[in-house]
Amino acid sequence: MLPPWRSPLARALHRNRSLAYARYLQLATVTPDGRPTNRTIVFRGFLESTGQLKFITDDRSEKVTHLHTNPWGEACWYFPKTREQFRLLGQLILISADSALSPPLQQARQQQWQELSDAARLQFAWPQPRQPRTSASQFNPPPPDPIVPVANFCLLLLDPTQVDHLELRGDPQNRYLYRLADAGAWEMQAVNP
Amino acid sequence: MLPPWRSPLARALHRNRSLAYARYLQLATVTPDGRPTNRTIVFRGFLESTGQLKFITDDRSEKVTHLHTNPWGEACWYFPKTREQFRLLGQLILISADSALSPPLQQARQQQWQELSDAARLQFAWPQPRQPRTSASQFNPPPPDPIVPVANFCLLLLDPTQVDHLELRGDPQNRYLYRLADAGAWEMQAVNP
Repeated sequence: MLPPWRSPLARALHRNRSLAYARYLQLATVTPDGRPTNRTIVFRGFLESTGQLKFITDDRSEKVTHLHTNPWGEACWYFPKTREQFRLLGQLILISADSALSPPLQQARQQQWQELSDAARLQFAWPQPRQPRTSASQFNPPPPDPIVPVANFCLLLLDPTQVDHLELRGDPQNRYLYRLADAGAWEMQAVNP
Repeated sequence: MLPPWRSPLARALHRNRSLAYARYLQLATVTPDGRPTNRTIVFRGFLESTGQLKFITDDRSEKVTHLHTNPWGEACWYFPKTREQFRLLGQLILISADSALSPPLQQARQQQWQELSDAARLQFAWPQPRQPRTSASQFNPPPPDPIVPVANFCLLLLDPTQVDHLELRGDPQNRYLYRLADAGAWEMQAVNP
């Protein structure tokens, strides 16, 4: 059964679909020394019929290091047209080339790679992120295989256990808190904004 | 002297000024048990001629609790029109009613309160955030004094020590890392995107 917050989230995505950047959201993780980090990432849909959000990442990026010491992430997703915000807290699951994960997850990683644009795939062949800028020629590598993902390409899943939905347009405003209870069932509560 | 990243940030604000939500950004903090949190907040300008970003908050909000155990925050600011992102990491400084802070900071808090719209001020008289939804009548309190801030109104400052500026429109992309060195001087480096 789909989690109950998927329906309002799907509605927000639909109503904001004219804005390409309505699929951009911000993901916070925590560094090994306990500092918050935050960056914009692109929503790539849900993993099949689950509540797990799909993103892509490069295993050379800093956030991948963070996950080894702290698997938690909170995504903050603001929809400009409908003026609503979703905050999704959960554990992050990294599907890398060497993950000892189930074949369906490896298959999801491969499929995600195949669905990317050529330009998006090319970025995974770029030189090491956040290192001193290298020469321009290194940003024009041969295009990677469009079928078999490069080793540093990862699928990243966010598996929410709490979702906080705020509608600024309400009168006064509406806010709903969804929590995954211990028994595995979602509970929803209307709360003060 | 202004930090060197204020000029590209001011340019981004100017070029995106037609979008009201270009002044919205996402702020990540860390809970006492080490989990990341992330929410949208509104940029209220800089504190005078410094690099400190101004926000407002309610001292009943969760992020205020987080600051007591971990003062760090990272803001992620995406500008849709120019397709660029600023990540600003620094300590957060809370200017509350009872802060034993310098008179200029208390004055900045009071001035910020006076600059708010009536609607924005009213929110600070609303019932306790994130508690079970109370009756609608409680959201129509008498308007607070527009001159003297209510006790739960806080000015929140982010004092960046690292700024990461990414321009997606570059060819391939441009990324600049600004770091506050120990001597108090800013260093800038072009890095790989």
